[in-house]
Amino acid sequence: MTSAFGGFRTPAACVAMCWGVASAGAALADDPLPSWHEGPTKAALVDFARRAADPADPAYVPPGERVAVVDNDGTLWPENPLPFQLAFALDELARQAPAHPEWRDDPLAAAALRGDVAAVQRAGAAGLLQIVGLTHTGTTAEEFAERVRRWLAEARHPRYRQPYARCAYQPMVEVLELLRAHGFKNFIVSGGGADFMRVWTEAAYGIPPEQVVGSTARTRYELRDGRPVLVKTLEHLFVDDKEEKPSAIHQFIGRRPIACFGNSDGDLAMLQYTTVGNPRPAFGLIVRHTDAQREYQYDARPASTGKLVEALREAPQRGWAVVDMQRDWRRIFAWE
Amino acid sequence: MTSAFGGFRTPAACVAMCWGVASAGAALADDPLPSWHEGPTKAALVDFARRAADPADPAYVPPGERVAVVDNDGTLWPENPLPFQLAFALDELARQAPAHPEWRDDPLAAAALRGDVAAVQRAGAAGLLQIVGLTHTGTTAEEFAERVRRWLAEARHPRYRQPYARCAYQPMVEVLELLRAHGFKNFIVSGGGADFMRVWTEAAYGIPPEQVVGSTARTRYELRDGRPVLVKTLEHLFVDDKEEKPSAIHQFIGRRPIACFGNSDGDLAMLQYTTVGNPRPAFGLIVRHTDAQREYQYDARPASTGKLVEALREAPQRGWAVVDMQRDWRRIFAWE
Repeated sequence: MTSAFGGFRTPAACVAMCWGVASAGAALADDPLPSWHEGPTKAALVDFARRAADPADPAYVPPGERVAVVDNDGTLWPENPLPFQLAFALDELARQAPAHPEWRDDPLAAAALRGDVAAVQRAGAAGLLQIVGLTHTGTTAEEFAERVRRWLAEARHPRYRQPYARCAYQPMVEVLELLRAHGFKNFIVSGGGADFMRVWTEAAYGIPPEQVVGSTARTRYELRDGRPVLVKTLEHLFVDDKEEKPSAIHQFIGRRPIACFGNSDGDLAMLQYTTVGNPRPAFGLIVRHTDAQREYQYDARPASTGKLVEALREAPQRGWAVVDMQRDWRRIFAWE
Repeated sequence: MTSAFGGFRTPAACVAMCWGVASAGAALADDPLPSWHEGPTKAALVDFARRAADPADPAYVPPGERVAVVDNDGTLWPENPLPFQLAFALDELARQAPAHPEWRDDPLAAAALRGDVAAVQRAGAAGLLQIVGLTHTGTTAEEFAERVRRWLAEARHPRYRQPYARCAYQPMVEVLELLRAHGFKNFIVSGGGADFMRVWTEAAYGIPPEQVVGSTARTRYELRDGRPVLVKTLEHLFVDDKEEKPSAIHQFIGRRPIACFGNSDGDLAMLQYTTVGNPRPAFGLIVRHTDAQREYQYDARPASTGKLVEALREAPQRGWAVVDMQRDWRRIFAWE
């Protein structure tokens, strides 16, 4: 190792860094996935990561190709009682309403402002977009990020009484860390808004903004008082779900992943794209919401946003691991 | 240098970093930019990179925010006598023509097939898109990448008699390496097609596919004989030029860059977005094509694809460095 450090002006820095890594390595040697119960899924995860990073193993994959894609809502954090971004949009609607008396003439906005969340849910994707259109557009990208930051600091999940960004599933955070420790680059590939997610994914999951692929719309470049700003619009809307997920992976990442994590039929296409006919060894995993006590139980309900029917049916033939939250996860949240 | 390494969590990254920095460090001690003549531009480049990575310096920038964006055509490689992707598209048109007798009824395709390249150029962006539409769409993403690979292996630049991918500007390759050695993440932000560029940018510039932002169109996900494929279309076309460049940086990267390199008015907006009112110390640079002997001299010609009028006018007030290729570059290509 001596000559490897020859170029350092401050060898102490390098030693300090190597200590950091050594202690991380020691933690991994104990148990890289302490929030998982022992079992075939945990074993398969550890095995896959280790073999992909071991040049002597036939399942080795060169570092650049170690790309993992992970859904967010329902896979890395809950999507109940409402998808968190919808909760944000409704809170924003209420916060901004005093400046927008005209919203009272909009039946959906008026219903939402009366607290009739069911009406918004009944309106489906179109309803969500309408609320998002009212609350998220016309602002600059910087202002919007600031609003998300403020909301994250103030809002609490109605059941867990925790800030939303602290509701990450701890077992999945450990999977992301396991993959990173084995040279993987982790990308979120989610139907959520990229501008919404990028504010907090690094703190919550260790995933930096440039590794977040989500739903997007065009921003408009302007010089305002001589300063460049990007104004959010709903033009060229791209909803990153279902068959659009592989398309987004190609457009934003430009590599075929070798690991994919999802929880609903919205992830079926990217699970297929990752694992079926991939010349590299590939891994697929589905999180099933089976734990009404600690989280929510809803996956097989066809009307649910997290509908999981087709992907679950395909899982055995494709060799995808299926996580039963109740059975496989020792704890669900870091604060438990 | 200590905290410059603080963000590295993984052993693999640490080892790679130690080796990379050690060997790069030795090279840097000699001269990080050997293909540049001494002068204020070279000094400013080295100074900017070093200060951004030095925690003791007021111009220090945390590693995650050390994002550089670089135009491709005319900034990293030539765009003459034709933009290289147009040369590829015309070669593809000729190669595929025998299977497409109907192209003879298309005036533009027929002109191109007769070798009348000027007709294609006169048709401008619409003409280019028409040729691209004929030759690039309907194929799968994998097939398309294979075609680019074959073309790169076979085709030669008409003047330099070199494979196109060997026509990178060596001084700029050194700038990319200088930035990388100081913890920067380099992104291409180009009007060229992302699918075209991603095939060769890692070999030519050390920039991996996921750090290439370019023009894109939607791909359509299909299962063909049970295997997932992405079929190229021209739907939802996004042309990554001018005011769309900052918009694309926001959409694909989600961070404001602190360094920007361009060569034409097509890069003006992203130069502004990077440097004007940025709370971080930021660097802008324009490459001027002033060297008819070794490369091409064309930048101020208003009709040229590489038109450079407005950005050059703004450069002094914005503090952007302006490279005079003839005066500043000791050599232009690695094989000189």
